[in-house]
Amino acid sequence: MKSFMNARSAVVTDAVEGLLAASGGTLARLDAYPDIKVVLRADWDRSRVALVSGGGSGHEPAHAGFVGEGLLTAAVCGEIFASPTVDAVLSAIVAVTGEPGCLLIVKNYTGDRLNFGLAAEKARARGLKVEMVIVGDDVAIEHAPQPRGIAGTLLVHKLAGAAAAAGLSLEEVKARGEDAAAHVRSLGLSLTTCAMPGAEREERIAPDKVELGLGIHGEPGSRIIDFAAADRLVEQVAAPLLEALAPDERVALMVNSLGGTPPLEMSIVMAAVARTRLAEHVDLVIGPAPLMTSLDMRGFSLTTLALDEGRRTGLLAPATSVAWTGPKAFAPARVVPALPLDDGPAVPPSNDPAVRRLIETTTALLKRCGPELDALDAKVGDGDAGSTFANIATAVENRLDALPLADHPALLAEIGHILSRVGGGSSGVLLATFFTAAAAALGEDPVPAKALKAGLKRMQDYGGAKRGDRTMIDAMEPAIDMLVAGAGLAEAAEAARRGADETRSMATARAGRSSYVPSGALSGVPDPGAEAIARILEALASA
Amino acid sequence: MKSFMNARSAVVTDAVEGLLAASGGTLARLDAYPDIKVVLRADWDRSRVALVSGGGSGHEPAHAGFVGEGLLTAAVCGEIFASPTVDAVLSAIVAVTGEPGCLLIVKNYTGDRLNFGLAAEKARARGLKVEMVIVGDDVAIEHAPQPRGIAGTLLVHKLAGAAAAAGLSLEEVKARGEDAAAHVRSLGLSLTTCAMPGAEREERIAPDKVELGLGIHGEPGSRIIDFAAADRLVEQVAAPLLEALAPDERVALMVNSLGGTPPLEMSIVMAAVARTRLAEHVDLVIGPAPLMTSLDMRGFSLTTLALDEGRRTGLLAPATSVAWTGPKAFAPARVVPALPLDDGPAVPPSNDPAVRRLIETTTALLKRCGPELDALDAKVGDGDAGSTFANIATAVENRLDALPLADHPALLAEIGHILSRVGGGSSGVLLATFFTAAAAALGEDPVPAKALKAGLKRMQDYGGAKRGDRTMIDAMEPAIDMLVAGAGLAEAAEAARRGADETRSMATARAGRSSYVPSGALSGVPDPGAEAIARILEALASA
Repeated sequence: MKSFMNARSAVVTDAVEGLLAASGGTLARLDAYPDIKVVLRADWDRSRVALVSGGGSGHEPAHAGFVGEGLLTAAVCGEIFASPTVDAVLSAIVAVTGEPGCLLIVKNYTGDRLNFGLAAEKARARGLKVEMVIVGDDVAIEHAPQPRGIAGTLLVHKLAGAAAAAGLSLEEVKARGEDAAAHVRSLGLSLTTCAMPGAEREERIAPDKVELGLGIHGEPGSRIIDFAAADRLVEQVAAPLLEALAPDERVALMVNSLGGTPPLEMSIVMAAVARTRLAEHVDLVIGPAPLMTSLDMRGFSLTTLALDEGRRTGLLAPATSVAWTGPKAFAPARVVPALPLDDGPAVPPSNDPAVRRLIETTTALLKRCGPELDALDAKVGDGDAGSTFANIATAVENRLDALPLADHPALLAEIGHILSRVGGGSSGVLLATFFTAAAAALGEDPVPAKALKAGLKRMQDYGGAKRGDRTMIDAMEPAIDMLVAGAGLAEAAEAARRGADETRSMATARAGRSSYVPSGALSGVPDPGAEAIARILEALASA
Repeated sequence: MKSFMNARSAVVTDAVEGLLAASGGTLARLDAYPDIKVVLRADWDRSRVALVSGGGSGHEPAHAGFVGEGLLTAAVCGEIFASPTVDAVLSAIVAVTGEPGCLLIVKNYTGDRLNFGLAAEKARARGLKVEMVIVGDDVAIEHAPQPRGIAGTLLVHKLAGAAAAAGLSLEEVKARGEDAAAHVRSLGLSLTTCAMPGAEREERIAPDKVELGLGIHGEPGSRIIDFAAADRLVEQVAAPLLEALAPDERVALMVNSLGGTPPLEMSIVMAAVARTRLAEHVDLVIGPAPLMTSLDMRGFSLTTLALDEGRRTGLLAPATSVAWTGPKAFAPARVVPALPLDDGPAVPPSNDPAVRRLIETTTALLKRCGPELDALDAKVGDGDAGSTFANIATAVENRLDALPLADHPALLAEIGHILSRVGGGSSGVLLATFFTAAAAALGEDPVPAKALKAGLKRMQDYGGAKRGDRTMIDAMEPAIDMLVAGAGLAEAAEAARRGADETRSMATARAGRSSYVPSGALSGVPDPGAEAIARILEALASA
């Protein structure tokens, strides 16, 4: 499988460098690359309790993305899914610990506990005050003696971070961290396993199955369940978290992407969460976002943090880091009534025999020419230009007796309205735009030719075609320009005809129906749209 | 392929609902589901120019994630990769446009131009002031007459949004939007195509190829290039953007995930960007983050915005939305020197014949018992317990003449130090922790038994094992407790022996080496760690 990476050995150091480059100068790293990969606050002055976390990499943005004011002081990054060494952890502790001491926040894995633990002892031997909180928030395995630490660890960072930022003592910061760890529960679900950068994905999970209660290192889920609709899958993750809550317990909910779930689907997961009974307990929501990932796993986890006043205050306390998005109030979606789109009171029908004749001539012509224009379009487009024009003509004809023929601005607006409803593809929308814009112009200035010119301009603005691009503009523009110059219909029709004929020799279409057709195929064939315009004007001129 | 979704027809409405649920009440939607999917600011009062964008869905978090103060007023969401209807756009315009008017920001695709265009005309016919800016930032195809609008559109939102938030007129807001659109360039690269939710991925891209200059709807790239290291791939995306810049031009750079690239790899892409010559022009960086995605495409795009004072100010102006991450100063990574980890000035060697005899007895025993303990471990673990203890013994023996045998706290610390370097797996780290913690305790209180007890406690804190878990704790704890109670070595050795023998009947290991071994296999075999401890104490007692 292809991944964005340089050498396999540089995956973590590159990721750390990328994080630093995008941190706005708020983060620094220790210089002992590549063995020691420690990210720390660039502005740290050791005046308060330092918070150090970390573990294996592959969980980006955790943990280094959560280094910042009100969160971690430093993150120790191991290789992918491998605990950092004792020396790396000790380097981090030594770099950030001042007189107030240091709290280590460790996910409950043997390697992390041992390496962070020995580092803590060595730091103590150097006279530093160091304490540790171990997080085991995974509820995948009931009565597990050693539940794993997963996404909920980030909320321990947040609550201990708020205490440290407030200047509390190491003992108090540790107590807040332990309190958070005791009230946080997480459960994950994934459609796929994860793959090491550049490696093939293990095809452990059958196409019709998903894994529930899986770890963040590709460990198998505690249960294999059937693949189902998002609502049903999310329900099965939410249910154990709900069961663990007292009836009136309020929680903050974190919705975490496991790294390979596209944002569209994380929003669908969020919508599904909002439909569960768990949502009735939720006051604050964090995410959906990739926060504690498992490489490229297409899955998610939910985390609840039971709220009391202290935890709520800590969660809402200011914090800034590259990846912390902050909690938001969870509230039912607000719905605003849409205003009705009818175009105001209908203008009453009226008659104008000359206008009626123009319309009837046009619609009759378009219905008659339909097959011929379709045949032209079959050579240079998708073969439906004539049918589209004929459909439009029929729709106008059917409404003829209801049209305000004597109120010319209203008439143009109504034709625009009919065209926008017929569904005539791009041509229909463009002509609807032409008539709608022309109607508005005619309402302001009663010169018909200028109104047509205004309509043409809008059509070009939105359609993007100009003369010479092999579209109906090639007939419309010269004809309308002739009318604007004061000429009559006959001269306009001649101009349209010349324009339409010129499209026969345009080798390349730069807009519209023919722009996807190879140049050679166009030779000698007029653009069907331009041809239709020329024929309409010729018919009107001779009517 | 499995995706998180309910009905195919509900993908976009579910995603909109998920976005709203996570917006903290800042967003609302119009009520005309499912035909009309419009997300708008919940707090909008029509007192300033409204900004409306949108287009097909599948680009989450764009565009609805960019609705908020200083950004869009509303986003119109079409179905996946399909333009919203004229009525949907018109509903949005009508809902948010007050006296100051409305600017539409439209990505340059025919469907969007036409539907937003006709909606604009219809809105004008209702007396609303509406203008449009079309964005075509994609530089994939040189001299393209109609370059596509891709990720750069978000920076047009930002700069027009800053102008609207500042209370500027519609004409001025449009001018800022057009200015932004004229100075923004984007280029994308992907390792894979994208897949519609629930559909299989089209296997268009060969395993050793990637597509450069691709659109955000699965359109093929303008060039197929060889798959290569991240640095080399990023270089090829950066190069055309660099070429378009004047030698002293400063830019903001946006690093955008196309939706399926895990955060780890986006950081690697960011690191690669920082190594290009393009980086020399960068003052501000946005991302890396999924901002304008193409479903689950494993790719990225880079966008440059040429900066003048106005654009810089607009980009830095305050803005809040679900997905806007804000620009950050781009600066070389800060590196902090790690403090040296040597354990201070070495304590000079000294002699204490009794202590020397204890150590020599222990190391000799462990070297002698190595094969026997390995054989035990082969039954209940991975077969290397004896070798590990023998290696540790050899390492201590080799350093014997350099040890401060007469300075007992320093001696324990030095043994801990040796153990932490030998690499004895979990047992080695745990014993290193034991000695390091015991050394610290002995420095504070000169009672050896209490120091050993303190070491044991730390070992249990980090290792997580307690008595009865079938580990070396089962021999250590009773022996040390005996010493703490004032007993001699002989009684301690007896206690250790009883503890080690008890492990023979422990059916389940709850920690350590044997916790992965089926219970049946353990019966009658003592834990090798506990056995080693018992033998050491027996040897010391009889020495």
